[in-house]
Amino acid sequence: MATNTPDVLNEEVADTALGLLLSTVREFPQAERYVRAGKWAAKGYPLTKATLRDRTVGIVGMGRIGKAIARRLEAFGVPIVYHSRHAQPGVAYRHYPRLVDMARDVDTLMVIVPGGAATQNMINAEVLDALGPKGILINMARGSPALIRALKEKKIYSAGLDVYVTEPEVPKELLEMDNIVLFPHLGSASEWTRTKMDQLVVDNLASWAAGKGPLTPVPETPWPPKRRS
Amino acid sequence: MATNTPDVLNEEVADTALGLLLSTVREFPQAERYVRAGKWAAKGYPLTKATLRDRTVGIVGMGRIGKAIARRLEAFGVPIVYHSRHAQPGVAYRHYPRLVDMARDVDTLMVIVPGGAATQNMINAEVLDALGPKGILINMARGSPALIRALKEKKIYSAGLDVYVTEPEVPKELLEMDNIVLFPHLGSASEWTRTKMDQLVVDNLASWAAGKGPLTPVPETPWPPKRRS
Repeated sequence: MATNTPDVLNEEVADTALGLLLSTVREFPQAERYVRAGKWAAKGYPLTKATLRDRTVGIVGMGRIGKAIARRLEAFGVPIVYHSRHAQPGVAYRHYPRLVDMARDVDTLMVIVPGGAATQNMINAEVLDALGPKGILINMARGSPALIRALKEKKIYSAGLDVYVTEPEVPKELLEMDNIVLFPHLGSASEWTRTKMDQLVVDNLASWAAGKGPLTPVPETPWPPKRRS
Repeated sequence: MATNTPDVLNEEVADTALGLLLSTVREFPQAERYVRAGKWAAKGYPLTKATLRDRTVGIVGMGRIGKAIARRLEAFGVPIVYHSRHAQPGVAYRHYPRLVDMARDVDTLMVIVPGGAATQNMINAEVLDALGPKGILINMARGSPALIRALKEKKIYSAGLDVYVTEPEVPKELLEMDNIVLFPHLGSASEWTRTKMDQLVVDNLASWAAGKGPLTPVPETPWPPKRRS
């Protein structure tokens, strides 16, 4: 039996995504380090060049988590567009069939797509070039090999990352950059949400054992069982 | 002539408040320091004991900024109540005439009231005791002398601070605590918003010089001029 833990974690991950976006745009972790290093008394932390107030966010992947993020962004008054292979029924935001076209039109990308072959290297040099020198990439999804170069060459302005190709190893080049924000895969990482996820696994097993089938099967789960012909 | 810069900064300050709330509840700056210190490869950052998912926020001060914060919190699905001297017309959230009663009923306080004699020492030991051991205080408004003791004695769980009585000096005792988040008065501190605020000052002066009076006077501004009797 294969199941997942949908919905239980969506809101927590969306909280983390908004936290990573705000942290990156307004340099909160950097400013916090500045206070703790005792530098504030000598000189104020500089005004941030970036603000959320004049940005448009392009969401890459408008599934359950993408929608939870969009709901939050709306309350911040931030215009939203999205890219996914197909336009989502019932979603009013502008849909871009091609990611590079969306990257050209926005200054902030939030990447939520799950990993896997279909999305491998999705955030490539062409997309980052299109995002441009004011661009901020928020990556809740997967590493991007083209990213380090784009940051070094100032093709984009900054990035906030929660997931890395090589995690828990983080490329040394990223650790040395100050104008980015690095989270250690915090997506759903509260005790509260992980307990809910564990409980759903237990509930799935109990339901299966009681002959009622899985509660939250993945599409590949053979349930209901196929009749032998 | 005395004017202020209302509305221009509300949304930026509300962004900062949400960033400080998320940072404090989910320990984002601490987790970022952990990654940068190279600790992640040896051991994952611990799940946070706190989450926004099970919290109720009590807003202290439901003015323009308080309302901008409440709008954001609603999109996060967080229940909201508020304290101010008088119930606000048109505000549907539960109003508490007494702060200590609200502190007892919530686990998260967000303090937005302006400084001054009326609010001096508002967040006192009695309020922090009422908030309790799960309590998180987000202070966008002013220092709280009772806070250090409450944190040390674990009367509350943690705090996120943007404003300090002695700023830019921050009490050493706070700098040494790891379970809190310290922002260097970032409220409206983006170039974009500060430019808007500067422009409004210029516009006020130009309007005054043209005999049209101030655009955004404070209540004490003598405009329109009183007739001499």
